[in-house]
Amino acid sequence: MSQLPKASLKLFPCTIGGEINYSIPEGVKMEILECRNFIVENERTARRFLKALDRNFPLEETQMSLLNKHSREQEIPLMLKALEQGNDVGILSESGCPAVGDPGALVVAMAHKKGYQVKPFTGPSSFLLALMASGLNGQQFAFHGYLPVQENEKIKSLKYLENESKAKNQTQLFMETPYRNIKFLAFILKTLNPSTFLCVASNLSCEDEYVRTMTVQDWRKTELPDIHKKPTVFLLQS
Amino acid sequence: MSQLPKASLKLFPCTIGGEINYSIPEGVKMEILECRNFIVENERTARRFLKALDRNFPLEETQMSLLNKHSREQEIPLMLKALEQGNDVGILSESGCPAVGDPGALVVAMAHKKGYQVKPFTGPSSFLLALMASGLNGQQFAFHGYLPVQENEKIKSLKYLENESKAKNQTQLFMETPYRNIKFLAFILKTLNPSTFLCVASNLSCEDEYVRTMTVQDWRKTELPDIHKKPTVFLLQS
Repeated sequence: MSQLPKASLKLFPCTIGGEINYSIPEGVKMEILECRNFIVENERTARRFLKALDRNFPLEETQMSLLNKHSREQEIPLMLKALEQGNDVGILSESGCPAVGDPGALVVAMAHKKGYQVKPFTGPSSFLLALMASGLNGQQFAFHGYLPVQENEKIKSLKYLENESKAKNQTQLFMETPYRNIKFLAFILKTLNPSTFLCVASNLSCEDEYVRTMTVQDWRKTELPDIHKKPTVFLLQS
Repeated sequence: MSQLPKASLKLFPCTIGGEINYSIPEGVKMEILECRNFIVENERTARRFLKALDRNFPLEETQMSLLNKHSREQEIPLMLKALEQGNDVGILSESGCPAVGDPGALVVAMAHKKGYQVKPFTGPSSFLLALMASGLNGQQFAFHGYLPVQENEKIKSLKYLENESKAKNQTQLFMETPYRNIKFLAFILKTLNPSTFLCVASNLSCEDEYVRTMTVQDWRKTELPDIHKKPTVFLLQS
């Protein structure tokens, strides 16, 4: 059998709401458009993104496997099958960079286990943009995803993050389901110490992008931004 | 006095060793090329990057202020002076995205304090690419920068990160000065538990990019990669 060119699992970014032109480097765009085997978090948004990159993209010649929080580990080897045959497989998240804040890491872990090459590509990440724009410590930080839903637990988490931040000089990043953002922001402002710095970074890379860092005490005196249903990253440093 | 258009502090990415075409989105490139006031971590690399974006870039019409680890906080308001006059100011790090793993956050914090608009732009980040490509937990993670130089302290840190990872189900990211990478990798493999997962992500976005995740026990049986003097992110999950 002749040696096939080495295929790789390619971690492709997609937009986070902003323009493609500001989100995806040209070379990365070309790599995505050459790929015909995808593992996607959401088929509809993946199709829309590919068509937005190139309206002539041949969706009909394209294989898509679905990977979301309901996917089981034993389904993954099948998703990587094209790699065995020497064809690249690309992962596309619903938003931003795959395998960060989504189930993509499962596939990447399997690729390492099987010895396949893994190639990450540059694109937008709401938590990275938020960290850059926050002015908070970017030398030590921790990302926690979503905090617990239950109110008591949420208070405990926020207090814990505040203590961790002080003890370790570490910026703490976390999120909320977008339709609860307004309530969550009010809750944060009630819970944290007045001297703690809070950054609210909302709809980054979009036209109504909003980012502001103040102490909790200053936030309490300010009219709160309209972040309802807008993807938002919250950052604190105490 | 007439109202000037609102200026902003723009957080511009630069490459991390890879091609511009794979690193900087076209729209971001245009924003950088329109800017004439920069705060830079290293003047020589900033000039080289601007000329690489456009060989006709008018360096002679461009203001550059130096911001590095020796800069004092009281120098920063002067660096932001152009904003008062309605001109954008761009920050350029030596590598990748500013204000993450470099002193840029000081300037961003000052901009928030003075009420200036802050705008982050998408570009490459070695730690984000490493996290994506690691296959380790991308839902909870912490970045620690450099570990202590002293051997005893370094052992303690690695053990601590291993415990934190287990207790919090959190991927731990850290770095070493590139010329010590080889020694550091051997030291890590000697120090960590055999069952801990270690990812070595080196020269990401470059032609000799290397990324591999295995248990410490499997790393110990493997020929180690040549990461001497190559910017490398180490990630562990236990």
